[in-house]
Amino acid sequence: MNAPLLSLSRRLRRTPFSEGVEAAGVRAYTVYNHMLLPTVFRSVEEDYRHLKEAVQVWDVACERQVELRGPDAGRLMQMLTPRDLRGMMAGQCYYVPIVDETGGMLNDPVAVKLAEDRWWISIADSDLLYWVKGIAHGWRLDVLVDEPDVSPLAVQGPRADDLMAAVFGDAVRDIRFFRFGHFDFQGRDMVVARSGYSKQGGYEIYVEGGETGMPLWNALMEAGRPWDVHAGCPNLIERIEGGLLSYGNDMTDDNTPHECGLGRFCNTATAIGCIGRDALLRVAKEGPVQQICAIAIDGAPVPGCREWWPVLSERGHRVGRVSSAAWSPDFRTNVSIGMVRMTHWEAGTELRVLAPDGERRGVVQKGFWA
Amino acid sequence: MNAPLLSLSRRLRRTPFSEGVEAAGVRAYTVYNHMLLPTVFRSVEEDYRHLKEAVQVWDVACERQVELRGPDAGRLMQMLTPRDLRGMMAGQCYYVPIVDETGGMLNDPVAVKLAEDRWWISIADSDLLYWVKGIAHGWRLDVLVDEPDVSPLAVQGPRADDLMAAVFGDAVRDIRFFRFGHFDFQGRDMVVARSGYSKQGGYEIYVEGGETGMPLWNALMEAGRPWDVHAGCPNLIERIEGGLLSYGNDMTDDNTPHECGLGRFCNTATAIGCIGRDALLRVAKEGPVQQICAIAIDGAPVPGCREWWPVLSERGHRVGRVSSAAWSPDFRTNVSIGMVRMTHWEAGTELRVLAPDGERRGVVQKGFWA
Repeated sequence: MNAPLLSLSRRLRRTPFSEGVEAAGVRAYTVYNHMLLPTVFRSVEEDYRHLKEAVQVWDVACERQVELRGPDAGRLMQMLTPRDLRGMMAGQCYYVPIVDETGGMLNDPVAVKLAEDRWWISIADSDLLYWVKGIAHGWRLDVLVDEPDVSPLAVQGPRADDLMAAVFGDAVRDIRFFRFGHFDFQGRDMVVARSGYSKQGGYEIYVEGGETGMPLWNALMEAGRPWDVHAGCPNLIERIEGGLLSYGNDMTDDNTPHECGLGRFCNTATAIGCIGRDALLRVAKEGPVQQICAIAIDGAPVPGCREWWPVLSERGHRVGRVSSAAWSPDFRTNVSIGMVRMTHWEAGTELRVLAPDGERRGVVQKGFWA
Repeated sequence: MNAPLLSLSRRLRRTPFSEGVEAAGVRAYTVYNHMLLPTVFRSVEEDYRHLKEAVQVWDVACERQVELRGPDAGRLMQMLTPRDLRGMMAGQCYYVPIVDETGGMLNDPVAVKLAEDRWWISIADSDLLYWVKGIAHGWRLDVLVDEPDVSPLAVQGPRADDLMAAVFGDAVRDIRFFRFGHFDFQGRDMVVARSGYSKQGGYEIYVEGGETGMPLWNALMEAGRPWDVHAGCPNLIERIEGGLLSYGNDMTDDNTPHECGLGRFCNTATAIGCIGRDALLRVAKEGPVQQICAIAIDGAPVPGCREWWPVLSERGHRVGRVSSAAWSPDFRTNVSIGMVRMTHWEAGTELRVLAPDGERRGVVQKGFWA
């Protein structure tokens, strides 16, 4: 795999499911929100195939929660995002770009509205807690902000409904996309949402406290045998095919949501109170000058994308970068996520991608593959 | 080494020195501020011996900077820390605990005062940028806060002065501890401070921009041959012997600076404007109920400390935890850093340490070893 070794320490936090992950033979990790996130079990390709055909249990405890509680929780939540939250009801999850005062992306989490005065923000890889605490303090808001002991466990894949029904009962099948309900597991109340970081369908279970982690993991593994359940993790190939972005890889605080193709999650005109609203109004109206695109890359399977690969126009001008790339067995091409300037983002445009093993031809796609 | 593999991606940022690190045969990394930090070159023990006898060049680019610039920069800096900064002059570096409104540690960086209206905060492993930006925004301060493209390179070890003088000239020898000066390297101005995360003496060079990274690395490697220079990194054994704390390992936002033994860096009474001041006044006066201690642990070399190890009193009550531990070849014992309640923190107190391979006897030390 040509990967270096990772030195473990308490600072790279274990999760309530780490024991199960190790027993399942995890081969590699990444570090995400100061926590261990598995990246490979059998191989990236085998995990990919299995995810698309069966069902997997994922330790995504690294999706830490930022909890907002108190009278100003809703106001604070709206300050964080250009998405208009007025129509959002308790029981819903919203994908919310979080922006700073310049409109730059600080995180791209899922907001979970537990009640009018209680929210969880299920975060991507940055200490969003610090920004939210700073804003709450500086604006003297009447709200409590902290990281509760909540660890998401995902169940993903085409047989996810069957497996979840076997453990939580048939009522889980009725949860609609990006909605959640409360379910019982061994006497413990758990928030169960239909969501997750794959396009194969599935659920995320918000496990409060550490003690129920391994009992739940084991119950899912046990119940899932008929459907060939296996430990899994967010899969590089599958997420690129589906256009699921990764904060820190595909975008940073240099980018607006519009550049990230997240304009449909922004209601900048009506998101009154959003901190980045002034900065975003113009780009919301006129559109960005560069944007996330799906780019097919010719040739043999690409090496791992560990740094941004420059993207040039046919005439040799720098017009963008590739941030994630992998060989797709199903689409028989290298799939990738790039950021391309508007002069070259039209579908069908040919680009020169400077991969570390040489220049390759890239073609901008109409949309992502799956 | 019994370490898992690390999957690389752009999100775990490379540094301007990564090429040199790889060429020097890095064996393992950790991830620190979303960046690669080497942990082992030859072996932890060999690196330790060499650090104490020769000189090493360390890629500590992961000590990212938070830059404060503008009329309110000084005011903002004082809001962040209970250390009184009034006497601090441009050209000085201060170790500053950073606390939130509850007095909890958010980071333990080194503040570098470049000018009255310009500071760098050289951070430990948390996105302090988000807290500082949130505070600056909420309090409507007239200050610019961002992460500049500055990558520290450390030169550490007993021969550090000789090596630095060979590259920067003899004037570097005159830099006093925690002071810095401006020095020229190939026509580029660089901030050079006498500081670093070891007790062996040395310097940190703040390299602005990426292009000079490898030329400087190579110049140091070339000039250092007479003193057996080698690529190195913060060393687990040496830092525990010296009582150098690691944010996220030895302390978290649950802890006050006083619990971390950093009371001497707090002037809570006079640090007017510090956000955590109210919360810290009582503990500053009365002292904490638990505190960081050096604990010698009996027996064969301990395994890696990947989670907090519980620490019990002789009668079996939980009185603390060990957060970092290693076998010290020089002191012929296992050295460790723990947090112990005041009933059991007196030097000489015997404790029961629940290491993963069994219970061991621990003894609280008067102070750290080196």
